[in-house]
Amino acid sequence: MTTATNAYPTKAYGATAPDSGVGPIQITRRGLRHDDVLIEITHCGICHSDLHSARNDWGFTTYPIVPGHEIVGTVAAVGEAVTRHEIGDRVAIGCMVDSCLECAHCEADLEQYCLASGGNTGTYNGTDRRDGSPTYGGYSERIVAREEFVLKIPDALPSAEAAPLLCAGITTYSPLRTWKVGPGSKVAVAGLGGLGHMGVKLAAAMGAEVTVLSRSESKREDAEKLGAHAFLNTTDKAAMKANRGSFDMVLNTIPVRHDVTPYLHLLRIDGVQVLVGMIDMLPELHTGVLLGRKVLTGSGIGELAETQEMLAFCAEKGIVPDIEVIAMQDIATAYDRMEASDIKYRFVIDMESLRTAE
Amino acid sequence: MTTATNAYPTKAYGATAPDSGVGPIQITRRGLRHDDVLIEITHCGICHSDLHSARNDWGFTTYPIVPGHEIVGTVAAVGEAVTRHEIGDRVAIGCMVDSCLECAHCEADLEQYCLASGGNTGTYNGTDRRDGSPTYGGYSERIVAREEFVLKIPDALPSAEAAPLLCAGITTYSPLRTWKVGPGSKVAVAGLGGLGHMGVKLAAAMGAEVTVLSRSESKREDAEKLGAHAFLNTTDKAAMKANRGSFDMVLNTIPVRHDVTPYLHLLRIDGVQVLVGMIDMLPELHTGVLLGRKVLTGSGIGELAETQEMLAFCAEKGIVPDIEVIAMQDIATAYDRMEASDIKYRFVIDMESLRTAE
Repeated sequence: MTTATNAYPTKAYGATAPDSGVGPIQITRRGLRHDDVLIEITHCGICHSDLHSARNDWGFTTYPIVPGHEIVGTVAAVGEAVTRHEIGDRVAIGCMVDSCLECAHCEADLEQYCLASGGNTGTYNGTDRRDGSPTYGGYSERIVAREEFVLKIPDALPSAEAAPLLCAGITTYSPLRTWKVGPGSKVAVAGLGGLGHMGVKLAAAMGAEVTVLSRSESKREDAEKLGAHAFLNTTDKAAMKANRGSFDMVLNTIPVRHDVTPYLHLLRIDGVQVLVGMIDMLPELHTGVLLGRKVLTGSGIGELAETQEMLAFCAEKGIVPDIEVIAMQDIATAYDRMEASDIKYRFVIDMESLRTAE
Repeated sequence: MTTATNAYPTKAYGATAPDSGVGPIQITRRGLRHDDVLIEITHCGICHSDLHSARNDWGFTTYPIVPGHEIVGTVAAVGEAVTRHEIGDRVAIGCMVDSCLECAHCEADLEQYCLASGGNTGTYNGTDRRDGSPTYGGYSERIVAREEFVLKIPDALPSAEAAPLLCAGITTYSPLRTWKVGPGSKVAVAGLGGLGHMGVKLAAAMGAEVTVLSRSESKREDAEKLGAHAFLNTTDKAAMKANRGSFDMVLNTIPVRHDVTPYLHLLRIDGVQVLVGMIDMLPELHTGVLLGRKVLTGSGIGELAETQEMLAFCAEKGIVPDIEVIAMQDIATAYDRMEASDIKYRFVIDMESLRTAE
């Protein structure tokens, strides 16, 4: 079978209201268009955004919502014009499933910043550009997506571990590349969750000297295990002062609103602090700090080509996230534990648990 | 005469208290040390910082204070070890008169960011590193300073016009160089005062396409006269939206606290907004804007070598500030007019007015 035109009834887990929690729902995946790929999902990572979206914390959720944008699976069918993928290929989908592919940003391979109205099409809580239907994410048996937005998984990467690379991996990889981190760079990583722990591994693999920043002394050992070269307790005023002006980059993955000033002080002249979390409003910031040529910026996921490059990099360097595999039915517990930071460092759903459920 | 050891009684204008205003006072310039240069001041520009310092707006003024850090004059004597300057040379002093010259920043030719306790030595309101005496600025007949911090004025630059280059010029030149502005760059300049008007001239001379940003339509004609290629009224919502994502740099010279978000929206991906004014606390800033890879940073004056390079650049390109020359005795009126933005674009004091005063 190389094409299919019928829609696919699909078991999924989703939320139907802010307080519904995430539970079993039935969705329909569209029949394949000429450029579509049908993927039988084997694994899906759990991102903080999933939880925020399910609860409508950001105010722009449309229900029902099926979260999940760290998707790995196997190609089960392809549209008649598909050239990039074949049945049986191990593939992945990240945070977007479409963009205009025509604007200046898309032309520059920056699809995540698509300039068309509404931007890129989110893997979930988005709207299909052609038929206006809602997009549903990876907490489901299968997904149908345009071939350009389907990435290839290198053979060396196991499927479960590959899943979190599609969001936590690329979100930290991209700014490290944008700001040219490499041998000789001194990188500090703030926040040691799903994103932060990948930031440590990736920066170290790029040759940087990596320091973990944390308020909690309990993270010192974890930092070392992940390959960090140093640990800096941010509540230690003397140590923070001694480290002023010493980092080329602070990769700030802290997922809640906070004052970024102490991290700016850690930067050398022209050093850069990159925020990768959507953390609402930054508290007031004194311009005097910036006038010391400290740079503050942010970064959102990464483009398709860069994501494929990141997967190759991880395969080559043997870098995978530290994960805990769960059944789809355990999602509520996983969300609770994620909120309590009781996970080292990423949950991944084994989608077989959904497929075989009653 | 190549050396002198006696101190120099010197007429000056200074403030003795926050509400005293700036009036005649007598100071003493030290006798020359082996590496000192005595400069008979011919011109001194008036900077917003002078006014803020005289009134103790920033809370760190020590009285009496003699403002002025845009100083041009003629070498009248040199210490016995001085090799860089000779009697009769036309020279200049900017915002600093000393630094440790030994720390990592000084070694890297970034004396303005000297890491020694207290940083570089300000031209006024500073403390001499060797004898602990207060430093007094350019509202005076003469000044004595260490030869490394004395710059040469190229022949092509008239003295009065050269003065504002020492602060307004270098403060805008430095970030344009740091962020590699050149042919093909699109630069927007916010704020059209002493710094902003130099930003327009310098960016244009570097080959950039320059747009002036202003709330006031009355600046449109001024912008064109200064060599800007375009004008964007920031109160025109449609025009602001149409220009989103289109600038490589926003050089923000606005001297009062304000929300920098509208200027971040004007930047292309990886475009940078540079603040050059000490404007207290920035209002809260939404991280969502930064996550579009918009860069926010600041810059303070420039280093010695870069300042000398800037003077050469201005001489070569024929760039000088638009100035209004006043007598020292008219300082109060000048401050009033500066506060009312009633100056295009920089006051310069002709120090002959002080020398010949009763």
